[in-house]
Amino acid sequence: MTDTRARRVRVRRTSGHLADGRELIYFDDSEPYVSGRAQRSFDDRRVLEPRTDDSRMRFDEMSGEWVAFATHRMDRTHLPPADLCPLCPTRAGRAPTEIPADDYDVAVFENRFPSFAGGAATRSGEGTADVPAYGRCEVVCFTSDHDTHFRELGAGRVRTVIEAWADRTAELSGLPGVAQVSVFENRGREIGVTLHHPHGQIYAYPFVVPRTEGMLRQAERHHGRGRDLVGDLLAEEVMTGTRIVTRGEYWTAYVPVAARWPVEVRVVPHRHLPDLAALDAGEREELAHIYPELLGRFDAFYPKVTAVPYIAAWHQAPVGEGRDLCRLHLHIFSIMRAPRKLKYLAGSESAMGAWVNDTTPERIATRLRELA
Amino acid sequence: MTDTRARRVRVRRTSGHLADGRELIYFDDSEPYVSGRAQRSFDDRRVLEPRTDDSRMRFDEMSGEWVAFATHRMDRTHLPPADLCPLCPTRAGRAPTEIPADDYDVAVFENRFPSFAGGAATRSGEGTADVPAYGRCEVVCFTSDHDTHFRELGAGRVRTVIEAWADRTAELSGLPGVAQVSVFENRGREIGVTLHHPHGQIYAYPFVVPRTEGMLRQAERHHGRGRDLVGDLLAEEVMTGTRIVTRGEYWTAYVPVAARWPVEVRVVPHRHLPDLAALDAGEREELAHIYPELLGRFDAFYPKVTAVPYIAAWHQAPVGEGRDLCRLHLHIFSIMRAPRKLKYLAGSESAMGAWVNDTTPERIATRLRELA
Repeated sequence: MTDTRARRVRVRRTSGHLADGRELIYFDDSEPYVSGRAQRSFDDRRVLEPRTDDSRMRFDEMSGEWVAFATHRMDRTHLPPADLCPLCPTRAGRAPTEIPADDYDVAVFENRFPSFAGGAATRSGEGTADVPAYGRCEVVCFTSDHDTHFRELGAGRVRTVIEAWADRTAELSGLPGVAQVSVFENRGREIGVTLHHPHGQIYAYPFVVPRTEGMLRQAERHHGRGRDLVGDLLAEEVMTGTRIVTRGEYWTAYVPVAARWPVEVRVVPHRHLPDLAALDAGEREELAHIYPELLGRFDAFYPKVTAVPYIAAWHQAPVGEGRDLCRLHLHIFSIMRAPRKLKYLAGSESAMGAWVNDTTPERIATRLRELA
Repeated sequence: MTDTRARRVRVRRTSGHLADGRELIYFDDSEPYVSGRAQRSFDDRRVLEPRTDDSRMRFDEMSGEWVAFATHRMDRTHLPPADLCPLCPTRAGRAPTEIPADDYDVAVFENRFPSFAGGAATRSGEGTADVPAYGRCEVVCFTSDHDTHFRELGAGRVRTVIEAWADRTAELSGLPGVAQVSVFENRGREIGVTLHHPHGQIYAYPFVVPRTEGMLRQAERHHGRGRDLVGDLLAEEVMTGTRIVTRGEYWTAYVPVAARWPVEVRVVPHRHLPDLAALDAGEREELAHIYPELLGRFDAFYPKVTAVPYIAAWHQAPVGEGRDLCRLHLHIFSIMRAPRKLKYLAGSESAMGAWVNDTTPERIATRLRELA
């Protein structure tokens, strides 16, 4: 039940299953490794409906993109009161949650309301017919503390989260039918977050996502310049300098030259790596400091706003074709364009895909830099 | 100052200019053609700041898409009280609005806060450098009545709006540097509408929008089947039948097989036409009935909701390359997934471009059909 894959940074990984068969994995970083220590950390006594994995997907011939249909998600838990939070540990005298342990450091489990689920034998090619939306969706609980934020975890705990992400990326990439693994956090009610407990998500997609498909097309065109599109764009930003936010030994954060959002940053490793699993210890350690520090700048961006809604998403290389063309990077952006004002996606953005930004990348970078 | 381009359906077109030089065009359908009748319909006595046309755009190498930057839009009018609505006629004893006439049928004027503006000499190719975001943005006021909706205009007035759209599409398509003309309406505070007066917008883009670029790629792949992608998809929908909402002599409305939104419909002409200007009288007339009728079904979709937020966008063929591959169609969709609940675009949609829908196209179609 225990292995030592992530032991070198003193993270203990323990895996088991919930009442309906979903996998639960503890990543313990604090001795005596409380959550994985006891059999009762997997003693889920709830009577649960059988897990739902009836998601379907269809190919949209008009756009050339896959769209998933997960009707059971209509019923998902939506902003429960804090004492019914399903991501808190199961504590004496309280209703059982998704996590049977009475405390934990970082916990990952399969989403009860997944957009993608089930194992793929073989997936058929494009076509208008319904096909099962194979893949896997996981929830990553960053801490047992309901009332905090990712940026306040401390570098040690962020490092554990990174170990968990790397572990999950490697494992999910090996599942049959998985084409790409994406790791992300949605933070803030303004973007539809349904649970306030600090957590992120992992989607193991059965297709290469449209954003990556676009990047692959661009990387192909970029061929003459070495095909390392993300690396070459990073080099250009470093040379230009005006949009750099922060730069470490292993990572650089900058505002993209064609930023779409009111606050936006791209965080890129200096090495050409496909995914989080490929990061070495030095890269993980620096990331554990730079990432929460950047989120701190986001939260300080607007006066009188303490928690800016944001999406932080890791773009990882596809598992198969195109893997060598994609460099891992993190994209963090906010839809907040002023205190209490959001950027809406209306006709031009939503229907045409043509973004209009009310600010400039250089202004965003200047503001983010001064918040150091 | 007057021409008769749209005379055959008894619409009188009269054009002039506002105080800062922006063009204003009246499309009168009710004799004695009140708004165009008098010189004072163009007597704009406001002292206006010089018009802003300093929008820029940059090519996003990562996605292969253009992004526009219009910093002056930060200052645009935002939900003014009804008695300061800039789209109402200028009435005695009230502050002057964007429309000097004391009444009008349909009025079109250049947006004071345009995302794209100014004439293009030649536009340079792709590159990370800033280039001017040439083009034109217009506002289409559907009626002088502040407190109504497009679907309540009546077929006669909708017909006039169609004439105005066709006129503007033809004229803007001829401007130097314009690559594509898009006509759309955003309705509802939930999607960020800043003015409640019934109105739509027209964007004359200096590039082909990403959504169309995607469709062109698909149409190219579709080559073997005749390159009429939109037409072939329509034929498939008619054959399948389960997603058809309504079907006339000239138009068919259906829910796309891979719908992304909680309520969504595509309205396609039976002929392969590039844009609104190419519609004949019969097509315009039927559209003037079908379109508001469909919007009525949208507004009836949810119990206890009388005005569903929606985006209604006309996809028109590019002016140049690819024109023969694109069939005109209307895309109407709502972000409302239940009364008072919106579909949010979080990590999967916003960052990865991978849509997950909580409902199915067949359910949407069934509901829309029963609301006839």
